[in-house]
Amino acid sequence: MNPSIIHERKLFGPGPTNPYAEATAALGLPLLGHLDPEFIRILDETCEDLRTVWSTSNARTLPLSATGSAGMEAAFVNSVGPGDVAVIAVNGLFGQRMVDVAGRCGAEVVQVDFEWGTPVDADALAAAHPSPKVIAAVHAETSTGVRSDIAAIGAIKGDALLLTDAVTSIAGIELRADDWGIDIGYAGTQKCIGVAPGLAPFTINDRAFERRIENPQSWYLDLGMLGGYVGEAKGKRTYHHTAPVAMVCSLHAGLKRILAEGLDNVWARHEAAGKALHDGLQEQGFELFAQEGSRLPELTTVKVPDGVDSAKVRGYLLENFEIEIGAGVGKYADTVWRIGLMGPNANPASVTLLLGAIDEAIKATR
Amino acid sequence: MNPSIIHERKLFGPGPTNPYAEATAALGLPLLGHLDPEFIRILDETCEDLRTVWSTSNARTLPLSATGSAGMEAAFVNSVGPGDVAVIAVNGLFGQRMVDVAGRCGAEVVQVDFEWGTPVDADALAAAHPSPKVIAAVHAETSTGVRSDIAAIGAIKGDALLLTDAVTSIAGIELRADDWGIDIGYAGTQKCIGVAPGLAPFTINDRAFERRIENPQSWYLDLGMLGGYVGEAKGKRTYHHTAPVAMVCSLHAGLKRILAEGLDNVWARHEAAGKALHDGLQEQGFELFAQEGSRLPELTTVKVPDGVDSAKVRGYLLENFEIEIGAGVGKYADTVWRIGLMGPNANPASVTLLLGAIDEAIKATR
Repeated sequence: MNPSIIHERKLFGPGPTNPYAEATAALGLPLLGHLDPEFIRILDETCEDLRTVWSTSNARTLPLSATGSAGMEAAFVNSVGPGDVAVIAVNGLFGQRMVDVAGRCGAEVVQVDFEWGTPVDADALAAAHPSPKVIAAVHAETSTGVRSDIAAIGAIKGDALLLTDAVTSIAGIELRADDWGIDIGYAGTQKCIGVAPGLAPFTINDRAFERRIENPQSWYLDLGMLGGYVGEAKGKRTYHHTAPVAMVCSLHAGLKRILAEGLDNVWARHEAAGKALHDGLQEQGFELFAQEGSRLPELTTVKVPDGVDSAKVRGYLLENFEIEIGAGVGKYADTVWRIGLMGPNANPASVTLLLGAIDEAIKATR
Repeated sequence: MNPSIIHERKLFGPGPTNPYAEATAALGLPLLGHLDPEFIRILDETCEDLRTVWSTSNARTLPLSATGSAGMEAAFVNSVGPGDVAVIAVNGLFGQRMVDVAGRCGAEVVQVDFEWGTPVDADALAAAHPSPKVIAAVHAETSTGVRSDIAAIGAIKGDALLLTDAVTSIAGIELRADDWGIDIGYAGTQKCIGVAPGLAPFTINDRAFERRIENPQSWYLDLGMLGGYVGEAKGKRTYHHTAPVAMVCSLHAGLKRILAEGLDNVWARHEAAGKALHDGLQEQGFELFAQEGSRLPELTTVKVPDGVDSAKVRGYLLENFEIEIGAGVGKYADTVWRIGLMGPNANPASVTLLLGAIDEAIKATR
């Protein structure tokens, strides 16, 4: 590795992905002030386009000025306080992280576990507590490559607020915040949106906003203040913090790119690329990790074959092909690979390259 | 304003400033994965170069993955909990914000007020409480253009931890975290560092880290976890959240740019540009707002002359010169301008342009 060389990685890990060219180009444009009328126009358009990718009409839809994990924190600090009951589905690392974050808000957490590699079961969540304030689940578990049925949870949520982690699903697979009953959702930019990491697309509906924690423990993520920051009341934009201008402009460009292709077409492209990779890997003798029927097209989990050294293969791919794929998480760190086909990388060339490169890498490192 | 035109603003407001060209160029490079060995090298070098601009040897010096205001939140959530006494100096908006943030941590806040436009007085802070856990002050108040003597507070802090906001001072004027007794410091990238907004350079020494709040209310800003994220223990880097890779690479490039010029030279350049602007404005009949002897070179506050419409002048500058200057804050919103000469904008051409443009704008809008 030569520090004076600019590396051109093919980012096929669990994220970040390579950004859309439009998103990268926007980062190089002259910077705008965070109160510049031109930036305000761009921020307004970004919020509007985020509504489209969330499939929501929520007025309070905005890019939080931090990464997806801060989106999770924003979801909980604004919705649960000491003693509030939070039913949290855990079928991977990010569900587990929700438990930690909700606990720091003083919530009484009812953790409902599901085997890693399997989806969340809505009925089990419904049975966990008679009257939780929130029910939380991850739509696309980045640690396991599993998709859960959020609409089914929306159907049983009753009076509870439904919190959804859409970090790895947004702009990659079908996501319908309003139709599915999502009250609070957060995401990241660095997966299927195809923009560098650094922002957390966030949405909250009126129902959740009215039941929010006033004066929450986080000033930075206080949605009561952030409403003014994004100009909730027309002509009454109030200063909260300095927006990360360059990243917002990049997100703006990435979303325009997605909507120019059409959201349905983008979903179909991810679906096709993922299926081709699933099929190709199985034809080459690999076994997939995520349960059949719940496999994410944008993030494939595959078992490392017996006798194959996971780290050596990943190192070989990086050194020889500039290809990054991800290791597994937790107890699956050495026995599962995570392969992302997100944003611009969800295409047939990526699949063909990956299938060939993984085959070569395994042979070379045996 | 034509949305299809790329605007090339001259950002002479209180921040963001125009970035250094090196920092913008880095944003356009191919994205790296957040666990890529090449990115880890860049992050390590960034932390090392941040130590230089903070003038510290603190191992725990890192760019937090959010804007400067999140740096403030990180400083307090990790240092004060319910009942802890925090003496907070308030001589402008950002000191006032500290009071809000500390209060949300449950701290018993002892607020010590100073007139806006004047610096903080260390003796008044010492007299405010016999045994606070923290004493907090803003080094360079962005709302008023005032510099306070942080070393003097370090000299009277006793057993307390000294928290310092260096958002508008870092890499612009003399800042010596270790020599001055700063225990926890936070900053932003979008002022004198000359990088787009989005990261909060942060430093905490061993003394403060040992007395930190364990399991603080913020998961995202938990310094106990973030130590592992930046590889506090060699070879034991642990995943916490996905780093905002593009922004970190931009900060890396901006810091290299600063250190290539030499930090002392960068300070001198800001000093010279600021003095030239102060002198020029006074020669043109303007009255400066910040108290003489405590004026920041990188951020000049000037009183709007009687009979001049602040907003009209700012609008004229933006429309006709693509120049942004800032309004005042709070009760000075319409009666003070804030003019920044930060990062690459701290140069003689900026001063000459500003003096001429402001003169023209006032004449044109009378």
